[in-house]
Amino acid sequence: MNKIEHIGIAVKNLKDSNTLFKKLLGAAHYKTETVDAEGVNTSFFKVGDNKIELLEATNPNSPIAQFINKKGEGVHHIAFAVNDITSEIIRLKKEGFTVLNEEPKRGADNKLVAFLHPKSSNGVLIELFQDIKD
Amino acid sequence: MNKIEHIGIAVKNLKDSNTLFKKLLGAAHYKTETVDAEGVNTSFFKVGDNKIELLEATNPNSPIAQFINKKGEGVHHIAFAVNDITSEIIRLKKEGFTVLNEEPKRGADNKLVAFLHPKSSNGVLIELFQDIKD
Repeated sequence: MNKIEHIGIAVKNLKDSNTLFKKLLGAAHYKTETVDAEGVNTSFFKVGDNKIELLEATNPNSPIAQFINKKGEGVHHIAFAVNDITSEIIRLKKEGFTVLNEEPKRGADNKLVAFLHPKSSNGVLIELFQDIKD
Repeated sequence: MNKIEHIGIAVKNLKDSNTLFKKLLGAAHYKTETVDAEGVNTSFFKVGDNKIELLEATNPNSPIAQFINKKGEGVHHIAFAVNDITSEIIRLKKEGFTVLNEEPKRGADNKLVAFLHPKSSNGVLIELFQDIKD
């Protein structure tokens, strides 16, 4: 794991939270993106070399809607930057982690991602995150 | 806010979680610390320029024990590095955040810290974190 790439935070209303996090972090979000396959609208903030990703559900079946129904707004996942997501998936499976994506998939921010189930990592949903070299 | 200084994760058993996070992050924790005033044992892992802090309650009245009873293990807080914690406290109060420490206090890792109540920041407990220049 190279660094904390971003922290994903589930919010009810992206517009309101964009305003709130601008006040908190001292700078506005630099982009928004909708990921239809995941049912989310996202916005990204820079904090030094790290990012904060806000996540708003686009429909009631979105994983983010379900998360908020169960736990309320708050930290949804931690994303770690890795160099080789495929080898990390193999390594972490061997170490006993429950990998939710055997094959990496395209996530927001045009990256390859895979998730580890929070039950195998102390309640924390972990995202592996690799830059795509086009 | 300069960067994500660390992410604090509440765990039930620090020894077990040290083993787990060593497997996850690929490197062992580099120190442990007990903060008696907070009722916590902590361990720290480096991930690039960021840190992961694991937090284990030392007694049933510890805020960490109460957090786990209510929400289970998982992300407890996000700490942002700031240059001047006193001016940030004043700024964030003016912006409408609920500051839990009007005066910064000494936290783990020999730093000045102050917390923002999660109710004023989308369910996220925020720690402001300033290096002490001795």
